[in-house]
Amino acid sequence: MRILVLNVNTTASMTHAIGESARQVASPGTEIIELTPDFGADSCEGNFESYLAAIAVMDKVVNYPEPFDAVIQAGYGEHGREGLQELLDVPVVDITEAAASTAQFLGHKYSVVTTLDRAVPLIEDRLKLAGLTDRLASVRASGLGVLELESDPERAVEAIVEQSRKAVEDDKAEVICLGCGGMAELEEKVAAATGVPIVDGVRAAVTIAESLVRLGLSTSKVRTYANPRPKQVTGWPITRQSARAGNQK
Amino acid sequence: MRILVLNVNTTASMTHAIGESARQVASPGTEIIELTPDFGADSCEGNFESYLAAIAVMDKVVNYPEPFDAVIQAGYGEHGREGLQELLDVPVVDITEAAASTAQFLGHKYSVVTTLDRAVPLIEDRLKLAGLTDRLASVRASGLGVLELESDPERAVEAIVEQSRKAVEDDKAEVICLGCGGMAELEEKVAAATGVPIVDGVRAAVTIAESLVRLGLSTSKVRTYANPRPKQVTGWPITRQSARAGNQK
Amino acid sequence: MRILVLNVNTTASMTHAIGESARQVASPGTEIIELTPDFGADSCEGNFESYLAAIAVMDKVVNYPEPFDAVIQAGYGEHGREGLQELLDVPVVDITEAAASTAQFLGHKYSVVTTLDRAVPLIEDRLKLAGLTDRLASVRASGLGVLELESDPERAVEAIVEQSRKAVEDDKAEVICLGCGGMAELEEKVAAATGVPIVDGVRAAVTIAESLVRLGLSTSKVRTYANPRPKQVTGWPITRQSARAGNQK
Amino acid sequence: MRILVLNVNTTASMTHAIGESARQVASPGTEIIELTPDFGADSCEGNFESYLAAIAVMDKVVNYPEPFDAVIQAGYGEHGREGLQELLDVPVVDITEAAASTAQFLGHKYSVVTTLDRAVPLIEDRLKLAGLTDRLASVRASGLGVLELESDPERAVEAIVEQSRKAVEDDKAEVICLGCGGMAELEEKVAAATGVPIVDGVRAAVTIAESLVRLGLSTSKVRTYANPRPKQVTGWPITRQSARAGNQK
Amino acid sequence: MRILVLNVNTTASMTHAIGESARQVASPGTEIIELTPDFGADSCEGNFESYLAAIAVMDKVVNYPEPFDAVIQAGYGEHGREGLQELLDVPVVDITEAAASTAQFLGHKYSVVTTLDRAVPLIEDRLKLAGLTDRLASVRASGLGVLELESDPERAVEAIVEQSRKAVEDDKAEVICLGCGGMAELEEKVAAATGVPIVDGVRAAVTIAESLVRLGLSTSKVRTYANPRPKQVTGWPITRQSARAGNQK
Amino acid sequence: MRILVLNVNTTASMTHAIGESARQVASPGTEIIELTPDFGADSCEGNFESYLAAIAVMDKVVNYPEPFDAVIQAGYGEHGREGLQELLDVPVVDITEAAASTAQFLGHKYSVVTTLDRAVPLIEDRLKLAGLTDRLASVRASGLGVLELESDPERAVEAIVEQSRKAVEDDKAEVICLGCGGMAELEEKVAAATGVPIVDGVRAAVTIAESLVRLGLSTSKVRTYANPRPKQVTGWPITRQSARAGNQK
Repeated sequence: MRILVLNVNTTASMTHAIGESARQVASPGTEIIELTPDFGADSCEGNFESYLAAIAVMDKVVNYPEPFDAVIQAGYGEHGREGLQELLDVPVVDITEAAASTAQFLGHKYSVVTTLDRAVPLIEDRLKLAGLTDRLASVRASGLGVLELESDPERAVEAIVEQSRKAVEDDKAEVICLGCGGMAELEEKVAAATGVPIVDGVRAAVTIAESLVRLGLSTSKVRTYANPRPKQVTGWPITRQSARAGNQK
Repeated sequence: MRILVLNVNTTASMTHAIGESARQVASPGTEIIELTPDFGADSCEGNFESYLAAIAVMDKVVNYPEPFDAVIQAGYGEHGREGLQELLDVPVVDITEAAASTAQFLGHKYSVVTTLDRAVPLIEDRLKLAGLTDRLASVRASGLGVLELESDPERAVEAIVEQSRKAVEDDKAEVICLGCGGMAELEEKVAAATGVPIVDGVRAAVTIAESLVRLGLSTSKVRTYANPRPKQVTGWPITRQSARAGNQK
Repeated sequence: MRILVLNVNTTASMTHAIGESARQVASPGTEIIELTPDFGADSCEGNFESYLAAIAVMDKVVNYPEPFDAVIQAGYGEHGREGLQELLDVPVVDITEAAASTAQFLGHKYSVVTTLDRAVPLIEDRLKLAGLTDRLASVRASGLGVLELESDPERAVEAIVEQSRKAVEDDKAEVICLGCGGMAELEEKVAAATGVPIVDGVRAAVTIAESLVRLGLSTSKVRTYANPRPKQVTGWPITRQSARAGNQK
Repeated sequence: MRILVLNVNTTASMTHAIGESARQVASPGTEIIELTPDFGADSCEGNFESYLAAIAVMDKVVNYPEPFDAVIQAGYGEHGREGLQELLDVPVVDITEAAASTAQFLGHKYSVVTTLDRAVPLIEDRLKLAGLTDRLASVRASGLGVLELESDPERAVEAIVEQSRKAVEDDKAEVICLGCGGMAELEEKVAAATGVPIVDGVRAAVTIAESLVRLGLSTSKVRTYANPRPKQVTGWPITRQSARAGNQK
Repeated sequence: MRILVLNVNTTASMTHAIGESARQVASPGTEIIELTPDFGADSCEGNFESYLAAIAVMDKVVNYPEPFDAVIQAGYGEHGREGLQELLDVPVVDITEAAASTAQFLGHKYSVVTTLDRAVPLIEDRLKLAGLTDRLASVRASGLGVLELESDPERAVEAIVEQSRKAVEDDKAEVICLGCGGMAELEEKVAAATGVPIVDGVRAAVTIAESLVRLGLSTSKVRTYANPRPKQVTGWPITRQSARAGNQK
Repeated sequence: MRILVLNVNTTASMTHAIGESARQVASPGTEIIELTPDFGADSCEGNFESYLAAIAVMDKVVNYPEPFDAVIQAGYGEHGREGLQELLDVPVVDITEAAASTAQFLGHKYSVVTTLDRAVPLIEDRLKLAGLTDRLASVRASGLGVLELESDPERAVEAIVEQSRKAVEDDKAEVICLGCGGMAELEEKVAAATGVPIVDGVRAAVTIAESLVRLGLSTSKVRTYANPRPKQVTGWPITRQSARAGNQK
């Protein structure tokens, strides 16, 4: 089984980290292909960047030359999953939804803890559309961005741990979904500080994608996610067009 | 990995069918142990029978002599999952929730189709507590009970197929969860009649239980599902007590 | 009119206190029969114990040899009311619901204050199923268990009073439902500290049970709470079976 | 105990019928005083008339010269209950809420059946504010007004019965609240046609008002329903003013 | 275009301030007619006063002798808008709803900040009926009444500013609706302290009323807001009756 | 005042029709600039096309060389409004939200009637995120696409009229938002067939955009819609890049 794991931003090192994380829980026969979009922001931290990422991810997937069995969109609180579902016949799993869905099997209420405050409404909205907010205790942010995470990791981790503790103590979360990745020590520290299960979206998504394939199930095509109707679409895919432009030179 | 699959009623042939179904999707290294409760109704079709089953299932599990890695409660819309979560340290998966959770990855809205009309409120309530009703299009019943299913299977299947079709056409469901089991042809016929993915709760639960174990995750113990506090519990387990009574004779 | 008041745990002194409380508001012609289940936990503080209590309560009621006009299940946030409704033709009143329903006639929002933190989700879930959460300001717990209530009553009362005050001041509750009983001074102190009406579940339930009987109304039998279908139920009732086992010796 | 039962319209024959109905379930020691407002519509069938009735009811109550223990506002889906709660220190019970609250003890879902279609949104809104819509299956109207009820009672009753049957069969209601009164045979016929419990708002309200008084409970005065702040109110009460105007002639 | 702007209380200086505020945003061709009700409280701070105001406002409008194109009810969290809609064929705009509706175009969540704590539930209820609570972060009150606003304006403004800041920082509001008027400096100070858009209900309502008129749209008359059915209404309008009584002298 | 009105698809004739419609309600001093995106589908009928349109619309707007005061995104149930809000400092109005927000001032419940069935979930989701579903009676589709609308306009109009009538009669809508444009006769026929107010999204949006500008209000920048953080964004804007590629040739 081959699963494409799509980073939503253009930072290749993040893509690599996501791929490694995915492989840690993949079944023996599963091949994880991590992909970086060809355009967009080096980190997605808002609606504009997320919408651009949505198109960049779809662009990357439709240009992928080999067959595959499932797609994981590896961005927290990002747009675009519905578009992929229309374009593809294989299952598509969003990591925000995968994490929440998994958390609900583990505790009465769950929280999401992320970095930037401005990501909170995006995550809330994605969970609202996914129908996964009834048992959502809170979405909390540390207030520190990705840059701080790199320049002063210790302080950044402490801020995340602090919000996780508040989620458990004040908001009564019994499970924490980490809405920010790339740090092995983070998961450990949050678990130690709170005593609750910690769900990583990418890893949860891998098991769900594998499960859907194993069950022989894929996206329903009767209505919302039917393949696009045949029509004139100008300038799509974005990168093939650029490539052609380049070739023509 | 060993997974206990608990039938909620005392009909051994159903237990066997559930076990077979589970094994069809279990990973190579997974051992499925199907278990029948020692007391309760031969078919669960209401709250009283479901409450009794909840206790009978817990009773069966705590008396199980070997180690195991996860538990699946294989009843649709039944009570008891929270109790198992308190008593055990391994993951517990309810098939009603497993099916709904899986369906939500496949379509915009889903429906549950079951046999008896009186089971509908139980399924609705279980999904409400699980926070899985936002995208629930409907819970529909064929109005025919388990007896009719056996005495006149063709008519029963037609009734289920008819409700599934209405769920898709009238209620706009894009995925159907079958809230009644034991019939291989049923799934096929509903799929053929509606063109939408059909989710079987037991099989979905097997992949979720395996996923949780593989991810190293289990029930949060900080609050709702903490192990019972040490105290005097009279007459528990039920069957060990009976056994002792028997032994004393 | 004869009303059965069922304690959910096996501590006879609590049963007695509940019965006394009920008699204080019962009408002249009403006979209150308080009953203790024959098995289960000496105090119900979680899902497992509550499920066991549900069955023990049903077991006690179906074994009750005399006619009666209504049943009150006197446990806060407990399972089982729906099962009793199926088994009986007389009205069944749960005290969690009785208190909330009464509180809604007295103020814009109400809170429930209980002892143990782990009881909070059970109470929330019961109120959610009962459709009584729209005007629920909060469910708060003092964090002290029943044992502390006995060993250091003054401190326990202060903790309850403190949470009640927070419910009124922070959560904007205008009525308090006390989700823990047996202490006459508690009600008085909470009322004095908050200035809001205090609703006791048992007493509210007595007036509701009497009202339903007086109105000639009982549980609807057309669907959810229809009597169980005729079928084979093994090992039920639990205690009659034990009794038989005993008799056979 | 003395309970004032306020008709919301100015038709004295309806007031009498309401009083008679109330007395049928009142306890021996309870005195029912039925009152007709001094101004307003002869039948309340919309927001304007309902707002006018709200003021007319408050006007009638504040002018009532004797002490009383509780007030019932006997109009279905009408405005005003909150104003009475502010003006009075005794419990106030609205029959729309009394009926719904009672119905919820009797079945999983309930419906309200009324006469005019335009009353439906008023009833829905009142139940929404009261937090009693989670288990509301539907509010249905026969489409026939009060005049038809009088001119062609048989046809009117049939229309109500028909909607009640649809509420049970199509909307899955298990209890019916009749949102229109004054016809003894109506209740009987709806019960016969549907087989479900029928709740009359006035009678339910009498038992609730009596219960609150017996429990020593009344409206919380800490916030929403505190007595009006001392201030200049011109032209209030309405009728005392008119009376003075009359006296001055 | 002529728009009637109705103050809900009998304090003429407030009416004047409201009219001035409205004129600041009215289009060149729009005439703003501000009106003070002939009876009721000098300031509306609760349900009784609000119900009385509802009738006084309707009374004032139906007695207005000239044609007009739209009506604005200028009270925050007040009753009555539905009654006006029934009585009139021109659009009716409530300022609570106008402010919230406008705020939703400006930020992800909004809060309302008002003076008295007891006004909070009225505002919440009005927004709930209007279906505008999904993105409501909070309704907050300074706890200071209108009198304090006049006697110690500086302290009153600071209290409002403080609650607005909490709404933005703690409740995550991105827009503030000011539920109290008459102070130019208030809006400025709240904007300066919070950095978010501030919506004034009266001014928002003027633009909405003008928009509806320009679009040729008015209240739907098919059901809820149909004109009252022809019937006997005693004592209506209130003031014309008094006038007649006066004339008869 | 200059308002940009963005068509979401690449069909210039539709852009023209939208512009004309907007101008019909624009104030004298308002200049309407209608724009067609440079890439994307000739008609938007699903998530993929809508996501592509979201980027194409943002691309078009950021490339627009003149100053402007507000932006209207003229697509029904489309993605992207949040991205525009981040990129711009002037108000952004989505026509789906504008129509619903306007409809709520006109009736108790409203429906949206559109062409294609697959657009229904997109519209529902957009209204859910906008917090405008509490009073949404239904979203209905005629089942006929844009092509049929052109090839057999009479039949298409009849289908829309039929669904509108059902929305009013069966779903109890009191206002209809037309989620499909470009046909003058459509509005007239629906109004004639149903007797309820018909809201056109583009025209409603023009009045709202003008109102916000007149009130001096724009998107809150404190959190969700803050301008994007400074960072590396590859390949943006899309068309300027293409243009450069073209220029280099």
